[in-house]
Amino acid sequence: MVSKFIKKEQAQPEAGVEITRHFTFAYPPYELLLECGEKLGPITLAYETYGRLNAEKSNAILVLHALSGDAHAADVHGGGDDPGWWNEMIGPGKGFDTNEYFVICSNIIGGCKGSTGPASLNPKTDRPYALDFPFLTIADMVNAQRHLIDHLGIERLLCVAGGSMGGMQALQWAASYPERVRAAIPIATALKHSPQQIAFNEVVRQSIMADPAWREGNYYDFGQPEKGLAVARMIGHITFMSDQSMEEKFSRRLKNGAFSFNLDADFEVEGYLRYRGANFVKRFDANSYLYITKAMDYFNLSGGKLIPTGKPINTRFLVISFQSDWLYPSYQSQDIVRELKGKQVDITYCELKSTYGHDAFLVEVEEQTELIRHFLGVTLKGYHSWNGQGIKYGGFG
Amino acid sequence: MVSKFIKKEQAQPEAGVEITRHFTFAYPPYELLLECGEKLGPITLAYETYGRLNAEKSNAILVLHALSGDAHAADVHGGGDDPGWWNEMIGPGKGFDTNEYFVICSNIIGGCKGSTGPASLNPKTDRPYALDFPFLTIADMVNAQRHLIDHLGIERLLCVAGGSMGGMQALQWAASYPERVRAAIPIATALKHSPQQIAFNEVVRQSIMADPAWREGNYYDFGQPEKGLAVARMIGHITFMSDQSMEEKFSRRLKNGAFSFNLDADFEVEGYLRYRGANFVKRFDANSYLYITKAMDYFNLSGGKLIPTGKPINTRFLVISFQSDWLYPSYQSQDIVRELKGKQVDITYCELKSTYGHDAFLVEVEEQTELIRHFLGVTLKGYHSWNGQGIKYGGFG
Repeated sequence: MVSKFIKKEQAQPEAGVEITRHFTFAYPPYELLLECGEKLGPITLAYETYGRLNAEKSNAILVLHALSGDAHAADVHGGGDDPGWWNEMIGPGKGFDTNEYFVICSNIIGGCKGSTGPASLNPKTDRPYALDFPFLTIADMVNAQRHLIDHLGIERLLCVAGGSMGGMQALQWAASYPERVRAAIPIATALKHSPQQIAFNEVVRQSIMADPAWREGNYYDFGQPEKGLAVARMIGHITFMSDQSMEEKFSRRLKNGAFSFNLDADFEVEGYLRYRGANFVKRFDANSYLYITKAMDYFNLSGGKLIPTGKPINTRFLVISFQSDWLYPSYQSQDIVRELKGKQVDITYCELKSTYGHDAFLVEVEEQTELIRHFLGVTLKGYHSWNGQGIKYGGFG
Repeated sequence: MVSKFIKKEQAQPEAGVEITRHFTFAYPPYELLLECGEKLGPITLAYETYGRLNAEKSNAILVLHALSGDAHAADVHGGGDDPGWWNEMIGPGKGFDTNEYFVICSNIIGGCKGSTGPASLNPKTDRPYALDFPFLTIADMVNAQRHLIDHLGIERLLCVAGGSMGGMQALQWAASYPERVRAAIPIATALKHSPQQIAFNEVVRQSIMADPAWREGNYYDFGQPEKGLAVARMIGHITFMSDQSMEEKFSRRLKNGAFSFNLDADFEVEGYLRYRGANFVKRFDANSYLYITKAMDYFNLSGGKLIPTGKPINTRFLVISFQSDWLYPSYQSQDIVRELKGKQVDITYCELKSTYGHDAFLVEVEEQTELIRHFLGVTLKGYHSWNGQGIKYGGFG
């Protein structure tokens, strides 16, 4: 099961200095075959791990991040300025309890956070790939991650979990490698993007591409298309929040007490968006944003592709959505549930009350912790009676 | 009551050739005093009229348009290529029945459809105003329209009506000139923008201003900031539709049968947005978009400003919202109702079922026709017993 690809891993770094590790693989002269038909390699994936893999290698959980996330999910090792995007959920005694589980957070190919993406050097030209980078799918991202899991010597994952695009990856793991995934926790996600979700992503892309500084993707010698990327991110931030959470956070409060009667930011919400947009361009590659949003739009596990008929059912599911999430509305999670129930899969669904909109998967810690802790405990108990072959159209023993 | 401003009106044009008329007024050496403290003049307003004003001048209805609308509301006169933005609602036998009523549709100052706006020549420089144009409020727009109504010799309007920003103008008419407005029909609108609505407008503005072709507003010698304006409009179009109406119109249908694996428009919804964006730049001035969205964000008649305490209540209301409108959600119409009910105003509220989102006020003809026809009929019947002084905290006789 372990991949035959050549593996390189940088030396284990000092704790508290640099905790993100990088795994590089290639299989010369062939590379990873992508869904688009092109090949990509060598491939580097950034990842972090928290906790210890037990002797039976039965306690490994793969955590997957959203569009602009990275491998740094938590501050378990300490010492960094950045606590990590899911720090409240991962650590000793937390929802993903690192006293009990070995948690891996993997970055994605196509990204810009230490993994191979459009900003990486193309070995054939020794220049950044830019738009020569092949267009990817979520399945391609998962296939790359599979080599990382092989490299870590893990045959079966206790669980794959993630929110938003991380949830898509979790679903794709269950679909692509059902015999290697004991449980999945897709949160605030969907089997496929609706036209409204595609539309928001398309406007985001158009905003980046409208900036002349984008230069058809070849901006690496000149700097980011800052203005277009900032606007793109501002659009994103509106969709991550709910009407109600914006009201609670900003209402109509003015920045300077009175209307400017010019084009300055009058309202606090405008200042917030401008700040978020300006900050984002410092930390995320514009081309990666284009590639990743395309992969999300292409993703489609509806119509029986999540649990293909005749394939063994190995994976139990905990599906979570949030009431005020209008970007990934609850009906999309219910579509996942319907798909699974039709195949008699062991599935639990919870729609959590929250006013935080799509951001809820990052900030609603308490209820998610309770649900996930219990779900993982039950999964671990049943793990040893699991043979990795699955049970056709039945429950778990 | 009729304004002392100097009035100019172009000669009545041939029917079927050019039906939009233009009214220009000024009051030298003073101009219209705006809320920002600046003065503006001379001012031209584009408007159209349909039907005939009766001898008592008691059948005049002022119809007001949304953000990107214009004075051409209907094709009653015939002969044009463009039927008008509310053609299904205005005409003989229609909701606003031109056999019975004299319908006026007025454009706004700040716009670019024949009225004075940032693209107009600044008489002091003989160059387009650009950002020297003063920033306006909805109340300023209504104050300018008041001079048009004076010019037409109408002392009391039977009704003011409009959707979206047209609804804001209708509410502002009732607030600014209660003794001149017998009835108001605000549709799919709000007493004030929520932070989410401000946020969408701010991203729209940022998108325009991010385009170097915007040139700090001084693009009139060079052409529009096409790319930024197109992206701005694409954002708008997403908010005008509902998740469900997008699903019904586009679902995930592909333009060319297969994924492109490049940055082309893969999905029909992407093609639609690109088309809408590209078309918009041909017909709307980018600076006007900035000015008008600011005016919408500034608008705020909440907290007792709609019907100021102690002022006579002259106006009866029909408030309409649409279930799937998430840009101007029904709770905002209900806020209007609450405000009015607290002052014992004669008010009818209807939330109409529709999947069309915010666009519903333009396309849901049947139910709106029925509601409006009945409301206008009752209003007209009671008109002659109305003395224009209103009744303090009471119903209508």
